[in-house]
Amino acid sequence: MLPVYIAGIGMSQFGKSSNTLVEIMEGAAARALAGSKIQDIEAIYIAVMNPEEFTGDANIASHVVEALGLTGIPALRVETASSAGAAALHAAFQSIASGYYRQVLVLGGEKMTHLSTSATTRILAEVIDAQERQCGATMPALAAMITEKYRRKHHISESRMARALCAVAMKNHAYGAHNPYAQFRQTLSKDKYLASKFVATPLRLYDCAPITDGAAAVILTAARTDILISGIGQGTGPVSLRERDSLSAFPATQIAARKAYQMAGIAPKQVDCAEVHDAFTPFEIIGTEDLGFFAPGKGGQAVVSGQTAADGILPVNLSGGLKSRGHPVGASGVAQIVEIARLLRGESAVKLKREPRRALAQSIGGLATNNFVTIVKKKAAAAIGAEGVIETFTVLHITPDGFLPPLALALIRDRKGALIMAQGEDITHLKIGREVYLRQVAGTYYFTVKSQLQKVRQAIRQLLGKKRSHTEPADGKKAANG
Amino acid sequence: MLPVYIAGIGMSQFGKSSNTLVEIMEGAAARALAGSKIQDIEAIYIAVMNPEEFTGDANIASHVVEALGLTGIPALRVETASSAGAAALHAAFQSIASGYYRQVLVLGGEKMTHLSTSATTRILAEVIDAQERQCGATMPALAAMITEKYRRKHHISESRMARALCAVAMKNHAYGAHNPYAQFRQTLSKDKYLASKFVATPLRLYDCAPITDGAAAVILTAARTDILISGIGQGTGPVSLRERDSLSAFPATQIAARKAYQMAGIAPKQVDCAEVHDAFTPFEIIGTEDLGFFAPGKGGQAVVSGQTAADGILPVNLSGGLKSRGHPVGASGVAQIVEIARLLRGESAVKLKREPRRALAQSIGGLATNNFVTIVKKKAAAAIGAEGVIETFTVLHITPDGFLPPLALALIRDRKGALIMAQGEDITHLKIGREVYLRQVAGTYYFTVKSQLQKVRQAIRQLLGKKRSHTEPADGKKAANG
Repeated sequence: MLPVYIAGIGMSQFGKSSNTLVEIMEGAAARALAGSKIQDIEAIYIAVMNPEEFTGDANIASHVVEALGLTGIPALRVETASSAGAAALHAAFQSIASGYYRQVLVLGGEKMTHLSTSATTRILAEVIDAQERQCGATMPALAAMITEKYRRKHHISESRMARALCAVAMKNHAYGAHNPYAQFRQTLSKDKYLASKFVATPLRLYDCAPITDGAAAVILTAARTDILISGIGQGTGPVSLRERDSLSAFPATQIAARKAYQMAGIAPKQVDCAEVHDAFTPFEIIGTEDLGFFAPGKGGQAVVSGQTAADGILPVNLSGGLKSRGHPVGASGVAQIVEIARLLRGESAVKLKREPRRALAQSIGGLATNNFVTIVKKKAAAAIGAEGVIETFTVLHITPDGFLPPLALALIRDRKGALIMAQGEDITHLKIGREVYLRQVAGTYYFTVKSQLQKVRQAIRQLLGKKRSHTEPADGKKAANG
Repeated sequence: MLPVYIAGIGMSQFGKSSNTLVEIMEGAAARALAGSKIQDIEAIYIAVMNPEEFTGDANIASHVVEALGLTGIPALRVETASSAGAAALHAAFQSIASGYYRQVLVLGGEKMTHLSTSATTRILAEVIDAQERQCGATMPALAAMITEKYRRKHHISESRMARALCAVAMKNHAYGAHNPYAQFRQTLSKDKYLASKFVATPLRLYDCAPITDGAAAVILTAARTDILISGIGQGTGPVSLRERDSLSAFPATQIAARKAYQMAGIAPKQVDCAEVHDAFTPFEIIGTEDLGFFAPGKGGQAVVSGQTAADGILPVNLSGGLKSRGHPVGASGVAQIVEIARLLRGESAVKLKREPRRALAQSIGGLATNNFVTIVKKKAAAAIGAEGVIETFTVLHITPDGFLPPLALALIRDRKGALIMAQGEDITHLKIGREVYLRQVAGTYYFTVKSQLQKVRQAIRQLLGKKRSHTEPADGKKAANG
C-alpha cells in the first residue's frame, strides 16, 4: 500500500447558512485548495447523507464537480448515514494507496437548517429500523435508551451519570468557544445545562448535537507532507436495538478501532488527542471506552476528572465536537479530520500540554451501525537530520504527571559525541548501540530507531560512496590535505 | 497497483418483484457467493441510486450487511446516479488494488416498480438541472433533444435515424429473449416498434429502458481467477444541457474510456464485446462512438448493418442491454459486469463468432454526467505452459471475414522444435527470436510476448539453477549417465 498524506484542509463556517448545499461545499473546497500546494485534483470523493430529501438534490457528485469548475474529472458520492464523511475519506484513501490516483479531494457537506426541526428529525430517523421507528423511536430516543442501559450496567447513579453528561457538554462548549468555525461559540454553565429541557430522558437539549449547515474538505496525496494517514478501519453493527448483544457499547467502533490501531502499529494510549463522534454526550463517553482510551464504565469519570481536557492525558473534542462545532451530518466525518490536522499543525487556538504527534477521529453512522476510525500521524518536516546511537535506555511505566506510560527514554550519543536525553517515538526495537534519528520539537528531543530498510539504504549509499572514492583517490587526498 | 480479479457473479431475476429492496439484493449476493470459492467477504460496496425516495430506506449499507448476516464487516454505499453500480465497482477495485482488502462484494440494486410511472419519472428526473427540470424536462425529454441534435449534426435523415433506433431496440430484445434474468424475453418486430407511442419525439416507448426491480453482485479478489479487471476509468460532464459544448456525444464517456484503455493497454478495436448503457436506444449508438468502436455519426449504420450483432465485428449488449434486461438503476452498472463475465466464461446462451477475450462495460450516470468504463480480460486458466520463440511474424491489416484488423500473426517454434501458426494477443513487441507464451483455445493458438519482468525472473531462476548444479556436479553427472 502506498502511503497517503493530507495536503490541504478547509471548512465552511458551521451553523445556519443562506447558501445552497453546493455553494457551501464549494466554499470549503476552495479553502482547502487555497491552503494547499496541490491544485490539480484528479478525483473528488463526496459525502452527503441525504441531499435527496434535505435539499432535493440528486446526482450530487455531478453537481459538485461542475460547481467547482472541474467538470470532466471523476467524482463519486459515498454514503454510510452520518459517518459518510469518514466513508468518503476511506474510499479516497484506497484510491491513492492503490496508486490509481495521486491527489484527490474529499468533500463532505449537508444543509439541514432550512427545514423544521420535526422534518429534520423525521429524515434523520429514517436510518432507524422500521419496526422501532413505527413505535415512535427517534435518534435521541434510542441514544437515551443506550445511555440508561450503560448507566445500569456499570452501576452508575443517576446523579453521577448526569454529572458526566453535563461535563461532556460543558467541556465541548468551552473548546467550541475558541473554534472560529463552530456553530456555538458560547461556554455552557452547569445551571444552564440543568435548566435545559429533556429531549428523551435522561438526555437534555444540551446533550444533543444541533442541526447544522456546513461543509469540510481534505486534500489527500501520495506525495509526502507533514501529516500521514497511518491507520483506517471500519466496522458495522445491527441496525435495530433489539438485535444487539450489547446496549452499552458499540462493537462497530471496536472493530474499526482494532483495524486502525493494527494498521498504524500503535496502542490506544499512544494517541495524543482525538475527535470522538458526540452526536449525543453519552456517545463521547462510550466512544472513549470503545476506542480503548478508558476501561468500560470509566469514560464518564475520565471527563469529570479532566482527563479528556486539553491538559489531560487524552484530550477529546478540542474542536468543540459535534456538540458545539455543529453536525452537518455528511460533513462531520471530514470536519473531524480537518480538526485533528489543525491540532497537529498547531493551528488550533486550544493548546495541548505536549505537542501532539498522533491523533484519532471516530465517526458513527446511524445509531452506531456503521463506524469508522482514522489515525493520522505528524511527520517531522525534516526528521532525518541529526543522527545518533543509543547509549542506554529505559521504558518508564510509572511516569510523572503529564506523561503517559509506557514512555521510552534513551540517552543518545550524537555524531559530535555529545549525549542527549530523548523520548522514543516507539517503545519497540530499543537496544544499546542501535542507530537512531533525532529531532527536536519545542525543546524536547525525540528519537526513532532506524529501520532495517533504512540500514540497507545506508549500506548502499556507503558502497556507492566507497566506489566513488576508489575512482577519485587523488582528489580526495588533495581535498583532505588542502 | 495489485491486480484485481472477479471471483463470483450473481443476479436476481430482473422485472417486477414482490420482495423488498434488501431481499432482492440479498438474493443476488447469495447467488454470487454460491458460485464462488470465496465465502469470507471482508467488505461490501453497495450501489443504490435513491433508496430514500424509492423505498424509504436510509442507512442502506447497514441494512444490507445485516440482512446478509455479515454485521461487523465494513459496508458502504457509493452513488453517482444511474452509474452507481459502476462507481461501487471502481471504489471496490481500489480497495483491493491498494492491498487494504483481499476480497470484497460489490452489490447493486434498486426497487422501483411499486411506484407509479409518474412518481418514478419524477424521482429519476431529480438528477436533471433544476432550471431545466422547472421547464418540465424529464430524462426522456433530454435524451430526445440529444438524439435530434445528433441526427442533424451528422446529416442523418429522420427515416434513417428511426431505422437505426429501431434496429437497436430489435437487436437488444432479440438477445434479451435468450437471457434468463431479463425483464422482457420477447422479440420485438418492426411493426410493433413503429406502433408504439412517442414518449418524447423522436423517441418512442420502445426506445426507453423500462422501470425495473433487480440486483446484481460481483465478488472481487486479489487472488488470481479466470477474469482480470484490466482497466477502469471515470469521467464527468456538465449536469445541464445548456452548459455543454457537445450535444451529440458524451465527453464523460470519452474521458472514462481513454483512461480505461490506457490502463488496459489496448485500443478500442481490441475489445471483443461490450455492454453499453442503452437507457435510451440513441445512447447505445452514441456510446459506441464515444468508446471509439465507430466513427462519430457511424454508430447507427453499424447497428443496422449488423456490426454490433453477435456475429458482427463488435457485439454490443448481447445480454439484451438495459432496454430488454431491464434497468434497476443502482444495479445496472454491476449487472453489466455480470453479463460480460458470463460472456467471457461462455455461460451466455448467445455465442460470438470467435471466443471473446476482452470485454468492456460502459455505464452512464444521470444524463451522461458521470460515466464509467470498465475493461475485463479473460485469463487463460493455465497460460504458462508451452513456450516458444517467434520464427517470423506479420501484422495483418486487411483481414479475412470474421477477423478484425490489425491482426498479429506469427510462426512460433515451440520447445520441441515444431512450428505453430498463432495469433498474437497484442500487436506490440513483435520481433524475430523473441520468446513467447503459447496457449490453445478451441483449435486456435494464441501467443503472448514475454515481458521484461518475466525475463528477469527467468534469468534469476537460471542463475539459481546453475549455482545448484555447481554444488552438485557429481549427482548431475550420475543422473545424466544413469
